[in-house]
Amino acid sequence: MPRKVDHRERRELLADALMRLAAAEGLEKVSLRHVAAEAGVSTGMVQHYFRTKDEMMTFAYDMVTDRILERSMAASPPETPREVVRSLLLQVLPLDETRRLENHVMLAFLAYAAVKPSIASELREPAAAMRGFLADKLREAGAGHVDPERAAAGLLALVDGLGLQVLSQQYAEEQAVAALDAQLALLFGRP
Amino acid sequence: MPRKVDHRERRELLADALMRLAAAEGLEKVSLRHVAAEAGVSTGMVQHYFRTKDEMMTFAYDMVTDRILERSMAASPPETPREVVRSLLLQVLPLDETRRLENHVMLAFLAYAAVKPSIASELREPAAAMRGFLADKLREAGAGHVDPERAAAGLLALVDGLGLQVLSQQYAEEQAVAALDAQLALLFGRP
Repeated sequence: MPRKVDHRERRELLADALMRLAAAEGLEKVSLRHVAAEAGVSTGMVQHYFRTKDEMMTFAYDMVTDRILERSMAASPPETPREVVRSLLLQVLPLDETRRLENHVMLAFLAYAAVKPSIASELREPAAAMRGFLADKLREAGAGHVDPERAAAGLLALVDGLGLQVLSQQYAEEQAVAALDAQLALLFGRP
Repeated sequence: MPRKVDHRERRELLADALMRLAAAEGLEKVSLRHVAAEAGVSTGMVQHYFRTKDEMMTFAYDMVTDRILERSMAASPPETPREVVRSLLLQVLPLDETRRLENHVMLAFLAYAAVKPSIASELREPAAAMRGFLADKLREAGAGHVDPERAAAGLLALVDGLGLQVLSQQYAEEQAVAALDAQLALLFGRP
């Protein structure tokens, strides 16, 4: 009896192929046909799962977000709000091959979204959810000297910016971690 | 007598054509031939000024950096270190059409640099100069509760990240300014 096809797994296989291509060549050159070739499947199979390139990109974006959260939770049993925030944001920074690849894709994705408003609207909800999560942690930590929403927005922007700088080789990985820790000290106080 | 050709002006004309194309279509599709067509000149003329696409991109990057500094100095007579920093960083954020275009190009440029190490090395010096400038202002302001170098790196990353978020429409312009002001308050104290 043939094994039941795991559609989620298939989609992830294709999204991973998209990510490898995006990291190597940028997203603009990527087509459903290229992804099929990279994944070693037919173009028809790709089209069965994703009608358009944008649909596939949105799926890949969500997949990366989920993986960041999963790794963050696996890495540290949530203790203080500050530790939860640090653990999460370290999973966002491009500090190993997996995260470098993810950052490449996120960056290519954002550059693509900047010229494609239809894609941009897909990003708003996960970005707002992430800011909301960080703001809650600041509230839990009793960081009364800052506006939690604005501080959360700034913290997320800082990590996005550090990722950009590490990826484009303007800034070293360990310096990025030090800059993140300096910001956490400003927001949460010294650990 | 024919007017002497202003080579600097010509280069800027071509770099501006590159920027319009990069903003509309992304940098990967841009070639010397496309830039020539956009600028309304021959491909040979473009090649006279720039041997390669990368050379033209590096020139455009430096040009944008210079323009940001010029606008920042024109916008406000330098008063307190905090005001100098705020004025400069507001010129980096994508708050009008000119700055949106610049942010598009910078973002496309960084995404390109992320997959092209030869370009990335060109970015290191201006990025370090900008961090150094911000660190000096923090020292001048006597912000003794932070490490100036790390706080400067964080501040620059925060503005890069906010630019990314505004451009990809995850975050509104006025929210980005508020997040920047919140960070300045953390670093310099309330105004």
